[in-house]
Amino acid sequence: MKDFNFYAPTEVVFGKESEQQISSLVRKYGGSRVLLHYGGESARRSGLLDFVKQQLTSDGIQFTELGGVVPNPQLSKVYEGIDIVRRDSLDFILAIGGGSVIDSAKAIGYGVPYDGDVWDFYSGRAQAKTCMPIGCVLTIPAAGSEMSYGCVITNDLVSPPLKWSYNCDLGRMRFAVMNPLRTYTLPPYQTAAGVTDIMMHTMERYFSHHTDMLLTDAIAEALLRTVKECGERVLSDPENYQLRAQIMWGGSLAHNNLTECGLQKDFATHGLEHELSALYGVTHGAGLAALWGSWARYVMNDNINRFAQFAVNVCGVRNDFSDPASTALAGIRAMEDF
Amino acid sequence: MKDFNFYAPTEVVFGKESEQQISSLVRKYGGSRVLLHYGGESARRSGLLDFVKQQLTSDGIQFTELGGVVPNPQLSKVYEGIDIVRRDSLDFILAIGGGSVIDSAKAIGYGVPYDGDVWDFYSGRAQAKTCMPIGCVLTIPAAGSEMSYGCVITNDLVSPPLKWSYNCDLGRMRFAVMNPLRTYTLPPYQTAAGVTDIMMHTMERYFSHHTDMLLTDAIAEALLRTVKECGERVLSDPENYQLRAQIMWGGSLAHNNLTECGLQKDFATHGLEHELSALYGVTHGAGLAALWGSWARYVMNDNINRFAQFAVNVCGVRNDFSDPASTALAGIRAMEDF
Repeated sequence: MKDFNFYAPTEVVFGKESEQQISSLVRKYGGSRVLLHYGGESARRSGLLDFVKQQLTSDGIQFTELGGVVPNPQLSKVYEGIDIVRRDSLDFILAIGGGSVIDSAKAIGYGVPYDGDVWDFYSGRAQAKTCMPIGCVLTIPAAGSEMSYGCVITNDLVSPPLKWSYNCDLGRMRFAVMNPLRTYTLPPYQTAAGVTDIMMHTMERYFSHHTDMLLTDAIAEALLRTVKECGERVLSDPENYQLRAQIMWGGSLAHNNLTECGLQKDFATHGLEHELSALYGVTHGAGLAALWGSWARYVMNDNINRFAQFAVNVCGVRNDFSDPASTALAGIRAMEDF
Repeated sequence: MKDFNFYAPTEVVFGKESEQQISSLVRKYGGSRVLLHYGGESARRSGLLDFVKQQLTSDGIQFTELGGVVPNPQLSKVYEGIDIVRRDSLDFILAIGGGSVIDSAKAIGYGVPYDGDVWDFYSGRAQAKTCMPIGCVLTIPAAGSEMSYGCVITNDLVSPPLKWSYNCDLGRMRFAVMNPLRTYTLPPYQTAAGVTDIMMHTMERYFSHHTDMLLTDAIAEALLRTVKECGERVLSDPENYQLRAQIMWGGSLAHNNLTECGLQKDFATHGLEHELSALYGVTHGAGLAALWGSWARYVMNDNINRFAQFAVNVCGVRNDFSDPASTALAGIRAMEDF
């Protein structure tokens, strides 16, 4: 077992009534002049954006809007955000959306107090010394960025584009507001891609050379089974609050390092997929689903028993005690079918 | 399912090498003049106290010692600590020990910046506005105070004594250093009482009227099964790092609210036990073990299916689908036997 640090300081406010607390959370964490950062039209169409703006206004919190964040969020938009925050002397970023918006907000947060080019952090040329305070209202459960220390930005100003990540505790969300009701309208494809990303965040930790951290394994398997079951059921029952809630909370726990305690994570499939989505604009979860089976078959002989454990404890495959390799392969097939 | 907040900001540093980081953690969280707070002779005998003092000294951190915290920590000792901190203008509390020492440290932390009597917080007469920064080096996994917002103090200055608790986010540990090696020397009785307390922290949340938060249930059951198995095995194998590590980390996760997300906790057995230990000095975990079966039989008819689920998923009882009550009772008996 590896020694580990566990640090997940984000205040999560979860549930149907959670959005009532947005402006008081902004205040609590020091915000009085806010960059309201969001993606496309869905936040506007759903009424969430107006609701937040109204709440901020009636609580005397000023804001400037910056929408238009795209999936695989771009460096050019980050530069735009940095300029706006400096121009308007803003002191807080409120991200409304999924992982792309949150990651874009993190990059702006690192960039504003930094004299150099924010891309330095992603290219490994510098380490952030500080970050603006950021909070989020999550609308797409998938990336786990609401509780993670990571963020991924695509440099769209070079050709071919580069999709690189930066991991740092300073950019962690101060708070994350999560209302499962907001995820009812996610289309089936995006729901499925999100579920895949969520599961992969835990699977990329689970397939570790460390196999003696029983509690982390048990929690990871519990999370994977639950999200898998709910992911299957929600496609034919998209307005089921119970199912949406498990997926949403599962997305945060899958990537806040809870399932990494005592393990050495791998994240090879993520690394491969980032190249695909940088070059071809692939939906991240779909890219992961396409790649994982090949990765698994390529590495399974390094630890057949681990893949057999996954097959039995997560995929419900019958354990062939006499032939762990066939059990392991049946698990990989079951996950591909899923 | 209940709406919930999840907030667990403590930085956990876990493992064999974790103690190397103590003084740098104290510095990171603003400590330069430290109250070194501990219990009896075990911290001294084990060499841990000397190790910490040496580390602080060589890093130029001043400290004043206050030992002598007893199980069911007392208000009189808290007053002593408050006086010392004020006298020596200390700016940080470092607790070395188990839940009693950590709870005593929390009470001192609340008391120092408060003009009135710190007991006001426990008696419900006031709410803390601030707390000194506190970190801990955990040596006894049981109470979960290293990641919880609670603390329990016994007012030994009244007769009969009062054992009351105070819950507040302000007193949360800034960091918790946990080295399972330090728990090898815990006697079997104390190990077993600790395991009972750990499991009860999750069971008092699990037996909720909310039964639709699948992910929390799955995590709670995973935690209970793992700690139960390791608790049984460690009694005959006390120097097994793997077993000690699961119990130690399980103790933190059992009480940092992870297993409460979406549920309404009960804590009736804890409430009953606090009276017993205040009056008779009972070891908390032993008191819980003596009481739980009676509590469970008293309430089980309110939700037989929940107790049957516990019996099957935690205790490994065979499910009698035709008679949930007999399944439930078999689970209660299995837990009592354990």
